[in-house]
Amino acid sequence: MSSEFDLIVIGAGPGGYIAAERAGGAGKKVLLIEKEEMGGECTNWGCIPTKSLLAGAKHYVHARESERFGVTVSGAKYDLKTAMAWKQETIETLRAGIAFLMKKNKVEVVKGTAVLNPDRSVRVNDVLYSAKNIIIASGSSAAVPPIPGADGKNVVTNRGILSIEALPRKLAVIGGGVIGVEFASYFSAVGVEVTVIEMMDEILPLMDGDFARAMRKALKGINFATSAKVTKITPKGVDYEKAGKTESVEADLVLMSVGRRPNLEGFTEAGLDISRTGIRVDEKMRTNLPGVFAVGDVTGTSLLAHSASRMGEVAVNTILGKEDRMRYHAIPWAVYTLPEAAGCGLTEKEAADKGIPVKTATVQMRANGRFLAEHGKREPGMCKVLVHAKKNTLLGVHIMGATASEIIPAAAAMIEAELRTDEIREIIFPHPAVAEVLRDAVWEIE
Amino acid sequence: MSSEFDLIVIGAGPGGYIAAERAGGAGKKVLLIEKEEMGGECTNWGCIPTKSLLAGAKHYVHARESERFGVTVSGAKYDLKTAMAWKQETIETLRAGIAFLMKKNKVEVVKGTAVLNPDRSVRVNDVLYSAKNIIIASGSSAAVPPIPGADGKNVVTNRGILSIEALPRKLAVIGGGVIGVEFASYFSAVGVEVTVIEMMDEILPLMDGDFARAMRKALKGINFATSAKVTKITPKGVDYEKAGKTESVEADLVLMSVGRRPNLEGFTEAGLDISRTGIRVDEKMRTNLPGVFAVGDVTGTSLLAHSASRMGEVAVNTILGKEDRMRYHAIPWAVYTLPEAAGCGLTEKEAADKGIPVKTATVQMRANGRFLAEHGKREPGMCKVLVHAKKNTLLGVHIMGATASEIIPAAAAMIEAELRTDEIREIIFPHPAVAEVLRDAVWEIE
Repeated sequence: MSSEFDLIVIGAGPGGYIAAERAGGAGKKVLLIEKEEMGGECTNWGCIPTKSLLAGAKHYVHARESERFGVTVSGAKYDLKTAMAWKQETIETLRAGIAFLMKKNKVEVVKGTAVLNPDRSVRVNDVLYSAKNIIIASGSSAAVPPIPGADGKNVVTNRGILSIEALPRKLAVIGGGVIGVEFASYFSAVGVEVTVIEMMDEILPLMDGDFARAMRKALKGINFATSAKVTKITPKGVDYEKAGKTESVEADLVLMSVGRRPNLEGFTEAGLDISRTGIRVDEKMRTNLPGVFAVGDVTGTSLLAHSASRMGEVAVNTILGKEDRMRYHAIPWAVYTLPEAAGCGLTEKEAADKGIPVKTATVQMRANGRFLAEHGKREPGMCKVLVHAKKNTLLGVHIMGATASEIIPAAAAMIEAELRTDEIREIIFPHPAVAEVLRDAVWEIE
Repeated sequence: MSSEFDLIVIGAGPGGYIAAERAGGAGKKVLLIEKEEMGGECTNWGCIPTKSLLAGAKHYVHARESERFGVTVSGAKYDLKTAMAWKQETIETLRAGIAFLMKKNKVEVVKGTAVLNPDRSVRVNDVLYSAKNIIIASGSSAAVPPIPGADGKNVVTNRGILSIEALPRKLAVIGGGVIGVEFASYFSAVGVEVTVIEMMDEILPLMDGDFARAMRKALKGINFATSAKVTKITPKGVDYEKAGKTESVEADLVLMSVGRRPNLEGFTEAGLDISRTGIRVDEKMRTNLPGVFAVGDVTGTSLLAHSASRMGEVAVNTILGKEDRMRYHAIPWAVYTLPEAAGCGLTEKEAADKGIPVKTATVQMRANGRFLAEHGKREPGMCKVLVHAKKNTLLGVHIMGATASEIIPAAAAMIEAELRTDEIREIIFPHPAVAEVLRDAVWEIE
């Protein structure tokens, strides 16, 4: 073996690089292994490039649809090549930032594909490395189900769609989860005819039912086919079955966004306990193998970049002997569509399923001063809060409307700190802010 | 006396109408007196109309300056009349909303100017009203110092400038506080040449010094004259002294935004204890007169709409016999300029003045994924956190950059809940969000 480390981290996405940064910052000798690019799926083919493109799409909409504010333009144009260059610059700046963080925290970085051996050594490019502890943060990849035509040239996943060179005329999106709906929103905003085909009876399954329905209506440029099972992809588009009938949607590009599968290549021969969804871990991110941890998408528990980062922190704290554990009750999520939505904590359905008695209140965005000033009374949006019916602690917050993703951290803080309604009512929010909907909804409780 | 109420509220701004709503909601018989418009200064001539205009200005900037995202337009125009109509619609929607809230909470509303008599009766339009309790929420007005020429036709305050019918060619803003700088940012964004003249050596005195300086640089279309004392206003512009020299700035419109004075008319004969800055109150918003409370700008303690609302809640809770008190350590503020800034809690200078030992950390926005994706690495922005050096509790947060005003409620919640750094590090923020700067800055502490 070439070298003895305190910690080997496999995968430089938001789970792995944060774990490496924290461990390096605590003085540990860390090796970080990445087979592709620093930042992983999130930075290179996920969260970041989509936000870069959506930013431009939002400005394009602002340019064309701001007559009500007194702003008119002639000849608004959208150039994909420039947008893609902006996206690329964002990615490269972040990659460089992560590389700098690794250097700053004295993390050694090796490029290559890691294989975990039964003796817990790690092989990369035919070199063997060993360490007291190992964190597997290998992420996930787009799942491609065995639908006839799914291997066609017109079919892409989240990676392929980020390197197209011209806008499609018509885009079909298979799968109405977060990834599918974000791409749908982007392409629709820049003028592409978009159809989302979803097998379930509603899009965005992580959302509170009321909100998913409202979002489907708010994304009004997009066609949605729900309860629709794709049967075939052809060069002309997608065939699906709905209510016993076969229907077709024309498309020159098809995005496959039906789910993710854990990246287990290289980790199947070491004796790890692996379930159908990923590597099994406990609340300290420990696998069944002593000293071997897994964090992020590869665990299959919470497929979000920030969950991965937090899991990385928990794994490192456990290695450092600091008391910590992963909790899943206050993980926020956001959909960066136009309009945005975000949530944190329980939905009404989840509360009912768990037998937790709740009180709820919903306020409409049109009652909010800043929202009115910036979006007007016809723009949809709302905020729902769930509170424990007896303890009055905040259990869930759901927001639809501009800046929802920047407001939800306040909800995450309140849920994590187990604040009660009487405590939240004493917190002063700035006026005017869209965020006031959260305080107002809490005041509506009882 | 015509009628006996539980509570008379004088002034229907964010202090008064919230107090009336809360008391009415608790079953009290409430009379709300307003001499002008529902919503007061904030809704009609302050927070709300400025945000309505700034929303349009932001879209105008997006229309013209989005080449980097691939968005180009051949001709962008800004029409003040349409923008003013949007502003007016926003105001009227909110006014109607407040009127609805009053009806819903069975609050009786009377229009007229209130006078508080020594016997604690209240006269409006020659009718006398009485109540067990009275809340004075009469607000403040723009102060106009006795500068020669300040009574000229070319001089306006926050009210007059919101009813101009054409954009000035050149605008001089006297006073670089929040109101002055917001108007300066708006007019600059829509193409007006703007000069801000400030007597102190820096603009935005409520901000942390580093942030005020950075903001002055970030507002790059605007001319700033600091340490400058206005000596005369003429039809041609403004004369001021700076470093012993007299200088002139041309302007066809002059905005006077040097400060606010409490609206005390009608309250000076009742025996109230009134200081130079306003009606004196204790932490329960009680004045020296039994059963008479004062909230909001008229107290001169914290001239912010949301402070007024919270004071209104404290006064009502005190009346209802519920334990509550006004605290000033976690009141957020925001400046809705382009770019925005916001803060909550102590600045470094305030901590030093109070002898509170602090640790600080500052992170730059260019390290934030969402900020990079939406604004790029050249756009300024940062977040500074202050933590108690021994207790590790969060004491202050300062943010400059887009959506700062929507992020700061999370800081307010954390400061109010007295969270320590180790607790904040366990809160999961969504990725990517600009709000992550707050978590990242807390991680930098130590």
